[in-house]
Amino acid sequence: MPSEFELIQDYFNWQQASHSVPIGVGDDAAVLNLPKSQKQQLVVSVDTFIEGVHFPENTPADAIGHKALAVNLSDLAAMGAEPAWFTLALTLPEANPTWLHHFSKGLKKLADQHKITLIGGDTTRGTLSITIQVMGFIDTGKALLRCNAKPKDKIYVSGTLGDAAIGLALLQERLESPHISPQANQFCQDALNYPQPQNLLSKIIKPYTNACLDISDGLLQDLGHILKASTVGARLELDKIPLSDSALENGRKKALPYALTGGDDYQLLFTIAEKNEPLLLYAVAKTNDKISCIGEINSQTGNVTDDFGNLISTKGYQHF
Amino acid sequence: MPSEFELIQDYFNWQQASHSVPIGVGDDAAVLNLPKSQKQQLVVSVDTFIEGVHFPENTPADAIGHKALAVNLSDLAAMGAEPAWFTLALTLPEANPTWLHHFSKGLKKLADQHKITLIGGDTTRGTLSITIQVMGFIDTGKALLRCNAKPKDKIYVSGTLGDAAIGLALLQERLESPHISPQANQFCQDALNYPQPQNLLSKIIKPYTNACLDISDGLLQDLGHILKASTVGARLELDKIPLSDSALENGRKKALPYALTGGDDYQLLFTIAEKNEPLLLYAVAKTNDKISCIGEINSQTGNVTDDFGNLISTKGYQHF
Repeated sequence: MPSEFELIQDYFNWQQASHSVPIGVGDDAAVLNLPKSQKQQLVVSVDTFIEGVHFPENTPADAIGHKALAVNLSDLAAMGAEPAWFTLALTLPEANPTWLHHFSKGLKKLADQHKITLIGGDTTRGTLSITIQVMGFIDTGKALLRCNAKPKDKIYVSGTLGDAAIGLALLQERLESPHISPQANQFCQDALNYPQPQNLLSKIIKPYTNACLDISDGLLQDLGHILKASTVGARLELDKIPLSDSALENGRKKALPYALTGGDDYQLLFTIAEKNEPLLLYAVAKTNDKISCIGEINSQTGNVTDDFGNLISTKGYQHF
Repeated sequence: MPSEFELIQDYFNWQQASHSVPIGVGDDAAVLNLPKSQKQQLVVSVDTFIEGVHFPENTPADAIGHKALAVNLSDLAAMGAEPAWFTLALTLPEANPTWLHHFSKGLKKLADQHKITLIGGDTTRGTLSITIQVMGFIDTGKALLRCNAKPKDKIYVSGTLGDAAIGLALLQERLESPHISPQANQFCQDALNYPQPQNLLSKIIKPYTNACLDISDGLLQDLGHILKASTVGARLELDKIPLSDSALENGRKKALPYALTGGDDYQLLFTIAEKNEPLLLYAVAKTNDKISCIGEINSQTGNVTDDFGNLISTKGYQHF
């Protein structure tokens, strides 16, 4: 059931005639044909970041700068696009030099790391809000989309899931009887505040991947997007869902719901044909990245089942 | 003297190494080299629109949609770029269907008129704020910049100036003893709410133009930007500044300050070599557009003088 706010996009679903927009709204980013270049396509994504909605109040300024860009870089990673440029529209209640110094530092560090250049912006006075638009490039026709998952594809995720959601729950003191060390707490806070977009891994997996997106609203909800766009179903092996040692300190049973429905993972969720699995594993083995096979695509459109064939709801985390 | 908020941009003046950004911050839009296309460049601009700052409270929703896009299209016009795509980041306190219907209608009408396609967006809950990023194309090296004005260039403006500022003054009941008809009042309100970006005129004048920008903060302040970027001065003929019949209803003397320092005109201000003047006038005569020669560039760097050689301050309208 879409939220009241998701329905807003219907007001802007204009179906404007244009040959230059092969992929418009509905995937992680838009894919655009350049008028005088057949070799490459432009990939564009925009996200707004608001205090109290997308990050808790009192989030460190450098984390806000980092995360606002990370979330957008993650959309480019989900499409398999090479980052190029970004713009920053910053609305601030006041021009606080300390805050600006740290915000800018967090933003620049991640931008340099991913070789993406700040090319313009706008600054206005108002409630704290950050809108970043990223632009990147792909070879024409090579974007990783949500709609290409095929029955019998293996389902993979990168990294570990649920750490950021556990970090938020710890911060908000919502975690039931937590037994978690200070180190594990810090690990989960860092996962929440400084997510690492998977742009490097995206380049590695791209040649072998059928469907791909980044997990921002929780594994089950985002898997649901792939299933819907590809009109397929999935069987998940719940005991294969990768959890960090920090998340496991509180027990697998308590951590798993955060991995399934928590938000803010910014890991890649992708499907590949079984025959490509050895090539994928060989390519990833040469990196420091970790990927885990967590299930298989089937033809039971829209359904997710567990190891025992029981249906699982794909309803995940909602920002609203 | 830059405002507290203008100084913020210093925090983001990173000088990131990049060969792909020939024109970065400081002009109306950024100009970007496409990695595999030498023929065209991408032109990108972003503007945030906030209630109470960029438009008065109680502005009709369709006017907000129109103006948020118009201001961005005007930046493309200032660069001589052909509009292609835009993204919309919309923050709203609530999902009000009537407001959304009218906002979307105002936005779409102008988008269709200028053949620019909405390719993506993000909707979040919060204080009303609209960030639009426009993208367009120019033939490589052909962008109209602020830095190319030459001594003896003629200074031209399009349309009439000051109407929107008079509209705002009437709305806020700031106009001293106004003698203005209901029709003229409506004309000035429309100039404030529904500015018409000069993208068509921009194509006409482009072959003959040295320096160009769009007037958003008032003629004098924006002329100051050309003078600073081109290290030149200007002599203005104040009686040549084009005023509308509506603005003149209150007398030329009262209207002129609005034309000189009022904001929100979104007319083009451009300079051309004297030898190109006949070609320019011939090309524009075939359109319905009006342009006026209002003075001449000279070598007295940064100075603006009137017909009698008196210095005029270039300090114009500030949003803050």
